[in-house]
Amino acid sequence: MKQKAFQDYYPETFSHCYGCGKSNVRGHQLKSYWDGNSTVAYFTPESYYTGGVPENIYGGLIASLLDCHGTATAAAAAFRAEGRAMDTEPAIRFVTASLKVDFIRPTPMGAELEVRGEIVETRPRKVTLELSLGARGETCAQGRMIAVRLRDDSGRQAP
Amino acid sequence: MKQKAFQDYYPETFSHCYGCGKSNVRGHQLKSYWDGNSTVAYFTPESYYTGGVPENIYGGLIASLLDCHGTATAAAAAFRAEGRAMDTEPAIRFVTASLKVDFIRPTPMGAELEVRGEIVETRPRKVTLELSLGARGETCAQGRMIAVRLRDDSGRQAP
Repeated sequence: MKQKAFQDYYPETFSHCYGCGKSNVRGHQLKSYWDGNSTVAYFTPESYYTGGVPENIYGGLIASLLDCHGTATAAAAAFRAEGRAMDTEPAIRFVTASLKVDFIRPTPMGAELEVRGEIVETRPRKVTLELSLGARGETCAQGRMIAVRLRDDSGRQAP
Repeated sequence: MKQKAFQDYYPETFSHCYGCGKSNVRGHQLKSYWDGNSTVAYFTPESYYTGGVPENIYGGLIASLLDCHGTATAAAAAFRAEGRAMDTEPAIRFVTASLKVDFIRPTPMGAELEVRGEIVETRPRKVTLELSLGARGETCAQGRMIAVRLRDDSGRQAP
């Protein structure tokens, strides 16, 4: 049976993200999944998400995919750490405290992108992650994220 | 007389960026300008560029605005360092080697965003920048970028 994507467990309130919200019909609707102890998402951009030259993807999309995959991975890691399935209450959402992206090489247009997450550390309110984005078997960008858990439904960040 | 935006000096070859290319009709078309020794860009996002909750902007757009404003600022700084106007040949383009974004507070939807750049160091092929993004007088995100100069028109990065 196919896994349900992390983002499809987000409460409706938090499902409006242009990068990954299932309720944002204009957006990318990124879908992230477990792959053993890592996480993965696949995405093929529309041709207008170009960088300066038409052959490459623009940096903002690369950052967005790493960002959305990272916060989704952080939430999934927190559920696992609590020994809970993602459809149990209370819902867990993480937001980005910091994201560093190293652009290794141009990311080609026209290829399926593979976004991966590795969990470095899981604390109750803070998850540290290593992220990567690749195309055609080559790593194009690497990321490091610190994600913090939302304290409540208000949209405010945990300290 | 109104300044011409940095991005409007980019050669047509490099004007396709979704974040800031004047030839990308689907994109944000960010416009960056000098403000003394700093640089500034203003941008009001469309309502569908939401984060998880509809009241905030999604992280990928914040990273994109910092990224595009940063590489534009790097190019402008390099022209200044060479004592040349931006409409002189050869054209100078920079790409992002690394971008770190610290998300300070949620960036509100419905406000004009102010993106600022401060040049930390200008070398012939590498510019280091501090960036910020604010709304309604509050800083929402801070960035630090290392941008490297394109060696030629091939889209490859300088080392």
